Amino acid sequence: MDSQPQESDITTGQKVNEDCAVIGFSGDGVYSSIIAGLRSLQHRGQESSGIITYDGKIHVKKGMGLVSEVFKNADPMPGIVGIGHNRYSTSGSKGIENAGPFVISCSLGYIGITHNGEITNEHELREELKHDGYIFTSSSDTEVMLIEFVKEISRYGINEGIKRGMERLKGAYAAVLMINDRLYAIRDKFGFRPLVLGRTFNGYIIASETCAIDALSGETIKNVEPGEVIEVFNNSYKTIFKLDGDVSHCMFEYVYFARPDSIIDNIEVFQARVRMGMRLAVESPVDADVVVPVPDSGRAQALGFSKATGIPYSEGLIKNRYSERTFIMPDQKSRLAAIKIKLNAIKSEISNKRIVLVDDSIVRGNTMKYIVKIVRDAGASEVHVRISSPPITAPCFYGVDMKTKNEFIAANKTIESIKNEIGADSLAYLSIDGLKQAIGIKSICISCLTGIYPEYVPLS
Amino acid sequence: MDSQPQESDITTGQKVNEDCAVIGFSGDGVYSSIIAGLRSLQHRGQESSGIITYDGKIHVKKGMGLVSEVFKNADPMPGIVGIGHNRYSTSGSKGIENAGPFVISCSLGYIGITHNGEITNEHELREELKHDGYIFTSSSDTEVMLIEFVKEISRYGINEGIKRGMERLKGAYAAVLMINDRLYAIRDKFGFRPLVLGRTFNGYIIASETCAIDALSGETIKNVEPGEVIEVFNNSYKTIFKLDGDVSHCMFEYVYFARPDSIIDNIEVFQARVRMGMRLAVESPVDADVVVPVPDSGRAQALGFSKATGIPYSEGLIKNRYSERTFIMPDQKSRLAAIKIKLNAIKSEISNKRIVLVDDSIVRGNTMKYIVKIVRDAGASEVHVRISSPPITAPCFYGVDMKTKNEFIAANKTIESIKNEIGADSLAYLSIDGLKQAIGIKSICISCLTGIYPEYVPLS
Amino acid sequence: MDSQPQESDITTGQKVNEDCAVIGFSGDGVYSSIIAGLRSLQHRGQESSGIITYDGKIHVKKGMGLVSEVFKNADPMPGIVGIGHNRYSTSGSKGIENAGPFVISCSLGYIGITHNGEITNEHELREELKHDGYIFTSSSDTEVMLIEFVKEISRYGINEGIKRGMERLKGAYAAVLMINDRLYAIRDKFGFRPLVLGRTFNGYIIASETCAIDALSGETIKNVEPGEVIEVFNNSYKTIFKLDGDVSHCMFEYVYFARPDSIIDNIEVFQARVRMGMRLAVESPVDADVVVPVPDSGRAQALGFSKATGIPYSEGLIKNRYSERTFIMPDQKSRLAAIKIKLNAIKSEISNKRIVLVDDSIVRGNTMKYIVKIVRDAGASEVHVRISSPPITAPCFYGVDMKTKNEFIAANKTIESIKNEIGADSLAYLSIDGLKQAIGIKSICISCLTGIYPEYVPLS
Amino acid sequence: MDSQPQESDITTGQKVNEDCAVIGFSGDGVYSSIIAGLRSLQHRGQESSGIITYDGKIHVKKGMGLVSEVFKNADPMPGIVGIGHNRYSTSGSKGIENAGPFVISCSLGYIGITHNGEITNEHELREELKHDGYIFTSSSDTEVMLIEFVKEISRYGINEGIKRGMERLKGAYAAVLMINDRLYAIRDKFGFRPLVLGRTFNGYIIASETCAIDALSGETIKNVEPGEVIEVFNNSYKTIFKLDGDVSHCMFEYVYFARPDSIIDNIEVFQARVRMGMRLAVESPVDADVVVPVPDSGRAQALGFSKATGIPYSEGLIKNRYSERTFIMPDQKSRLAAIKIKLNAIKSEISNKRIVLVDDSIVRGNTMKYIVKIVRDAGASEVHVRISSPPITAPCFYGVDMKTKNEFIAANKTIESIKNEIGADSLAYLSIDGLKQAIGIKSICISCLTGIYPEYVPLS
Ligand SMILES: Nc1ncnc2c1ncn2[C@@H]1O[C@H](COP(=O)(O)OP(=O)(O)O)[C@@H](O)[C@H]1O
Ligand SMILES: Nc1ncnc2c1ncn2[C@@H]1O[C@H](COP(=O)(O)OP(=O)(O)O)[C@@H](O)[C@H]1O
Ligand SMILES: Nc1ncnc2c1ncn2[C@@H]1O[C@H](COP(=O)(O)OP(=O)(O)O)[C@@H](O)[C@H]1O
Ligand SMILES: Nc1ncnc2c1ncn2[C@@H]1O[C@H](COP(=O)(O)OP(=O)(O)O)[C@@H](O)[C@H]1O
Ligand code: SF4
Ligand code: SF4
Ligand code: SF4
Ligand code: SF4
Ligand SMILES: [Mg+2]
Ligand SMILES: [Mg+2]
Ligand SMILES: [Mg+2]
Ligand SMILES: [Mg+2]
Repeated sequence: MDSQPQESDITTGQKVNEDCAVIGFSGDGVYSSIIAGLRSLQHRGQESSGIITYDGKIHVKKGMGLVSEVFKNADPMPGIVGIGHNRYSTSGSKGIENAGPFVISCSLGYIGITHNGEITNEHELREELKHDGYIFTSSSDTEVMLIEFVKEISRYGINEGIKRGMERLKGAYAAVLMINDRLYAIRDKFGFRPLVLGRTFNGYIIASETCAIDALSGETIKNVEPGEVIEVFNNSYKTIFKLDGDVSHCMFEYVYFARPDSIIDNIEVFQARVRMGMRLAVESPVDADVVVPVPDSGRAQALGFSKATGIPYSEGLIKNRYSERTFIMPDQKSRLAAIKIKLNAIKSEISNKRIVLVDDSIVRGNTMKYIVKIVRDAGASEVHVRISSPPITAPCFYGVDMKTKNEFIAANKTIESIKNEIGADSLAYLSIDGLKQAIGIKSICISCLTGIYPEYVPLS
Repeated sequence: MDSQPQESDITTGQKVNEDCAVIGFSGDGVYSSIIAGLRSLQHRGQESSGIITYDGKIHVKKGMGLVSEVFKNADPMPGIVGIGHNRYSTSGSKGIENAGPFVISCSLGYIGITHNGEITNEHELREELKHDGYIFTSSSDTEVMLIEFVKEISRYGINEGIKRGMERLKGAYAAVLMINDRLYAIRDKFGFRPLVLGRTFNGYIIASETCAIDALSGETIKNVEPGEVIEVFNNSYKTIFKLDGDVSHCMFEYVYFARPDSIIDNIEVFQARVRMGMRLAVESPVDADVVVPVPDSGRAQALGFSKATGIPYSEGLIKNRYSERTFIMPDQKSRLAAIKIKLNAIKSEISNKRIVLVDDSIVRGNTMKYIVKIVRDAGASEVHVRISSPPITAPCFYGVDMKTKNEFIAANKTIESIKNEIGADSLAYLSIDGLKQAIGIKSICISCLTGIYPEYVPLS
Repeated sequence: MDSQPQESDITTGQKVNEDCAVIGFSGDGVYSSIIAGLRSLQHRGQESSGIITYDGKIHVKKGMGLVSEVFKNADPMPGIVGIGHNRYSTSGSKGIENAGPFVISCSLGYIGITHNGEITNEHELREELKHDGYIFTSSSDTEVMLIEFVKEISRYGINEGIKRGMERLKGAYAAVLMINDRLYAIRDKFGFRPLVLGRTFNGYIIASETCAIDALSGETIKNVEPGEVIEVFNNSYKTIFKLDGDVSHCMFEYVYFARPDSIIDNIEVFQARVRMGMRLAVESPVDADVVVPVPDSGRAQALGFSKATGIPYSEGLIKNRYSERTFIMPDQKSRLAAIKIKLNAIKSEISNKRIVLVDDSIVRGNTMKYIVKIVRDAGASEVHVRISSPPITAPCFYGVDMKTKNEFIAANKTIESIKNEIGADSLAYLSIDGLKQAIGIKSICISCLTGIYPEYVPLS
Repeated sequence: MDSQPQESDITTGQKVNEDCAVIGFSGDGVYSSIIAGLRSLQHRGQESSGIITYDGKIHVKKGMGLVSEVFKNADPMPGIVGIGHNRYSTSGSKGIENAGPFVISCSLGYIGITHNGEITNEHELREELKHDGYIFTSSSDTEVMLIEFVKEISRYGINEGIKRGMERLKGAYAAVLMINDRLYAIRDKFGFRPLVLGRTFNGYIIASETCAIDALSGETIKNVEPGEVIEVFNNSYKTIFKLDGDVSHCMFEYVYFARPDSIIDNIEVFQARVRMGMRLAVESPVDADVVVPVPDSGRAQALGFSKATGIPYSEGLIKNRYSERTFIMPDQKSRLAAIKIKLNAIKSEISNKRIVLVDDSIVRGNTMKYIVKIVRDAGASEVHVRISSPPITAPCFYGVDMKTKNEFIAANKTIESIKNEIGADSLAYLSIDGLKQAIGIKSICISCLTGIYPEYVPLS
């Protein structure tokens, strides 16, 4: 089959890296281990998927779509080490040449990288590197990282080079660097994005979330700590250094992004969500008949809300499991109806009842408006919306695709007016303090809630 | 793009119709209404999808895959009436020419049909029809239905012809017949498979389940009763006749197949499932710490079990939402691990706890064995499996893809030995009586539980 | 890969059968022999391709595109007999369900057909057959043929049934009927379209042209004569009957359609074309420096013209071999330039010379206008256009896609005004008499030259 | 549609650049002009196709397959300048990341390149450049060229940088360098591969062959001379310098590779081929009845042979125009027959005649063996093979895919034994002197005939 034309835009400054999944594997069964890992991290990115393996030579496969689509009929790739990447889709126009992982050959041999996060001084670094004579083939910040590392490593050797690179790279990055047959797990000093190290029966795995280690029946060894770099080589691993600094774990991983069965920086995500629901119940109780989650993201929190209040929990909304992929309905009216294809109410659970509707967060608010309508249409006598995180009011520059302040419903509106807009009888968000307590660690990033950033950001 | 070659097998007697979805629509917005209906019934069949519309001429579109894949970039089809079909996938080798709906032209004009069920005397009818001079282009029993109706209608007119056709067609069928601009909702006299009539803001809809009517923000008018035929024409509908007989609604629709938000023959599926769980708790109680559903099919039942026993309900298993599609892992070891890609435990909910694991049914038993293992690996101190339906021991000849007795784990094994095989501490199934009470109607089919069939079946 | 949606239009009366290729094979190596045959007959149709084989069961593969595209990665189809079809493309909107071959099952077993030609009373027969209770699944006249044969054979047995079918079918057909493991080569009594029988080292082949037999290193046994039916069965063949009547071989096969290396009704096509050129030279000589063919269709005729006149032959135009497939240039100006992508002049052969430009025929005249321009731009001092067949002035109803009288440049214009329109210094066509003499048989169809048809045609 | 996975191999030293087509365009209508140019140069490469345009930003589209396939449904690319590339297919495994053109961004802005030829010191340069800190993303020698130019230009400015780059790059290259909105036509000092400059009604075009300029109805301005660099910018062009040295135009362009309607280094290719045939007739005359070309590559030469000898020319072989694309026949026997699908004899032109069979060259000899057999099977009384170029005995290192000496039938065999192997009655090749005279220039490369190379080659 003839391949599709590929579009490219290597124009500097266009952001292409949003929340993603990374995998590194060293040992036997590299290809199938990376495939399994990427499939278990598919929720972190569905736009494109890619794998690079090394066995003296380099092998690369990338494609648009889910892991299972891209690698469906692919021949297994040979390798003693390898890295993999799932990219998050924000729009369909992003070209394959911006898809991870990246690999180059240079005087050091073959160097590949897979990265989750966002380099905030990407633009400055790119210009500097160009000034130094480096060249770029894409507009991806991952390529800037890669070349920055190549530059420093060429000058200072691997360990010192990685350190110097990290000192120059600002922003969020949880990455795996592959230098020939060695892997380096690299996490920025704030620890925005998660990264863990595990062991399977036939090798070492580095992954964005523990659920990838579980998928291989492996065991988690440790978190890659903020600022830490771990080398995996020759069937062993060692920390080669750890930069110090204030820690700032993304609260949104706990609230929404991560899988509920993952453990992130020692916190069980599911339990954190249950606690968010409990805490929310304490902060904003309500007299009602049943607690109903917005599936799937509100389920753990609704269980917590129910537990804390004693109001029975039930499933009152059904999510159509086949509506994930974008499909444009052919006319305007049917487009409006499309939300009903995605979600439907179980009338018998809702009719004539006072409903507490629990979800994780509200970004734009459109969806919540329709969900409230669906619940009302199903006969609810009251609809109380409870959101298990605080209002989002500022952009994220650390790898989550929330950039434009104007999009956030909470940016310029009072809670009262949001309540009216979505048509709820009452609306409450979790407080920032409540969130911190529920997660159980203090050193979390809350910049998108406060607009205060732990470090320079490219505000324009 | 050049299309794919299409395989065909018109060999008589090869079964190709398993549980499926049907839609008929008459009014404005035929195409988008059928699309929305089919998308909301996608759970009844993911192998292929097709739509036929009529506007004086006939328009047909069919393809392999999900509705959203088949119709992704398709031009809207013009029409004043139309029918649609989703087919269930049991294997990938089934050709497009066996995919519904079917349409022919003859002296009566254009006649199309979409059908869910299985004609038990398909073989005899096909031979008789061939003897009468009729010809076949596929091995589908839907074509046999269509031609049987054409034959009788040609001789006796529409109403009498449909009646005579129904008298000759044995087995299960919930179908929509399109005769030029008229639609006929047809349900076999046992009422095995569901069929409902609804009204939207711009037309009439006939559908397998009420959730399709909901998806169009329509209202359900009535069930198509067992043996009933309803004509939809000229912006109105009327029952043209109703055959009498013993009713036999498929219990498996309530147990597993239908969407929980649908109402089937006046019974709310979700509530029936909750009652199955409650009843199971009464029949086979157990001392435990937490009730955990096997997602998604055990959720309502687990809620019922929890409610009846007071044992707290929680989510302890996470289902990877991206593992639905078949993807073959590249080696044996990774194939074994694949179940872990599909399901993972939330250790913190399970560790050191006595778990009641609730699911809807067990057919072959392989999956349940692995689920118990996953729960044990997560540290459960006890695992009590509770199945909210009775053991399946006999084949279904009425449209559900359970044909080979040897496949059923319960066919030749005691419950004790099944318990040992799946590695549970205890195992209990719901009783047949309990099932009937939970569903709340007496006239249900339980043939696959008893091996006793309400009518002749082609046992070989 | 998920297949494409398929459009259908079974509306009676829409013509879908234009000049095509048919193959039948009985013996060993059915699949690969049919593939080779179809590939060698690709010039007779590039729109779609299909094969049906029989080995007790029926196997069907069809698809849009060239043989090599449709069957690229296909598994070989088992069979002891089989038939194949290439369809000619007149427009891209024709659905796969109208693509040949066709197959049905009925009381006689499996009956398949592949057909080249056009049934002129298709509409009447279809209505009659519907009246008799027959049903249709497509708008193809091939299906009408098939069902007409099924009807007669059911009543009168195979031999008598085929005869009666042929007596009722008007128009042009060269077909292979497959009745279970028997093949029947069937040619209408006029013999419009070619059909030959051959023998390879491992079986019998029926084909539209001898070049298909050559492709299998086989030998041609005989023409299937006009009105003749030959049965191939059990490793032997026999004529089962032959209808009498006036013969009318399509002159256009010799002029343009057939491959130059084929022998049609005992006339070598290449030699016939050389004679057309010679005869044209005698009828319309011209004083010139070089004879240049329009490649590829004018080459043999130009050689004849050169031979008869002594004016040297040379290649003066180059045809881009990669421009066959439709590709729409992105803007108007580049669309006009597209003809230059298809054809270019060899200036050194043309500049300052008096050119005799020889082609086979002119239908619409657009292309010839541009070719004359290209030759003039290359510096020709004079351009004399010589067309090796008479002007086309009337539609063909016998299987060649020339339907609309208004399209023909010669329908309403004098030769003088055509000459001016295409910008030639002189223009001459071959006379009808000259054509007959060049081909060397009297009994040729010339209806599209005269507007007089050997039989009823559905003039509307 | 989800794209295909892409394989990559950036292992140094794997050759990926064989004879190809390049286009550069500056002016209005960049996209459609490049498309038209690439389509007219499709014969130089069918494996992949790509275009890069610049309009302040960079736009890239590449894909596997013909131009018409890759750009079929593509949106037009905006641009004020652009470059394009067709790649020659030697095997299907070559990845898209090795497909031209290439583009990078660096301190100079955007730099793109499209290249035809082969860099003989690619390996050494790559290592040196790596040593200098440069990095590579593919194994293509085009990337080495690009980076070498970037390096020199960064240091010395554009004009001096290109010159220094050319002094370091050994081997064959005809390239277009795009530096932001400027184009540079660059030809190695030997002038192995052709390159011309032309003017169309809306801009300047640089192309591998004049037929691309013709396709745009443009006029050829001049050859890019060996060692010359021409800048096209701001609607004008100028030579910026010209390196001196011995010239060595590839004789194989005249013999086989180029289109017959092109003019290469002032020699009309068609006429050169006619002269090769005439000269061959003088060197190796033979008493025969008809001169038959092997289509299409032997046609001009056969015309020359006929002209020089007076033996009549005719077409005796038909080439199936649909057999270009690789299609694997399903079994061994049919694979052997496949040559008959590609070529067939016109028996009436050959039977009982003494044939002079004329082709351009013999590389491996397999095909010629079968052609002689086809001609004999068609009844030729004698078959005299005349090859219009000398025997190929040594590998090409300058961009033509003839690498392995062992493959060449003439490398280790006498002409007598080749004659026997192919089954001819006589065999003669053109002499090297004859070739030179026929082409009409002395300074031609004949390294693959002599094994003597004008410059260092990486013999291994
Ligand atoms: N959209 C939906 N939302 C929730 N449940 C659904 C939906 N569609 C189907 N179901 C239910 O899902 C169950 C099947 O899902 P699940 O248990 O996850 O898969 P499996 O078929 O592997 O058992 C059935 O009980 C069906 O009634
Ligand atoms: N495999 C999974 N099983 C259950 N929940 C998941 C899974 N993968 C991701 N999630 C959770 O699903 C939530 C997102 O799902 P959902 O609410 O259904 O969709 P949406 O993104 O439209 O809000 C997130 O909270 C995420 O943590
Ligand atoms: N458009 C064209 N028209 C005619 N000849 C062409 C064209 N393009 C390339 N050629 C010539 O065709 C020859 C190759 O064609 P041919 O002999 O048919 O195929 P093969 O590569 O199998 O030998 C070359 O000599 C080339 O110069
Ligand atoms: N394989 C072939 N080799 C040479 N000529 C062929 C072949 N197949 C078909 N033809 C002849 O080619 C002619 C059509 O080709 P051509 O003139 O190039 O295209 P067009 O259809 O645009 O006129 C017909 O006369 C046909 O007989
Ligand atoms: S700004 Fe918000 S989304 Fe971004 S890293 Fe911080 S907490 Fe996470
Ligand atoms: S046999 Fe079982 S599955 Fe089949 S219709 Fe009856 S209850 Fe349903
Ligand atoms: S009308 Fe013309 S094209 Fe048609 S069959 Fe007769 S001669 Fe051939
Ligand atoms: S070695 Fe031969 S093919 Fe290569 S450039 Fe020289 S003449 Fe051409
Ligand atoms: Mg959600
Ligand atoms: Mg289940
Ligand atoms: Mg032509
Ligand atoms: Mg050749």
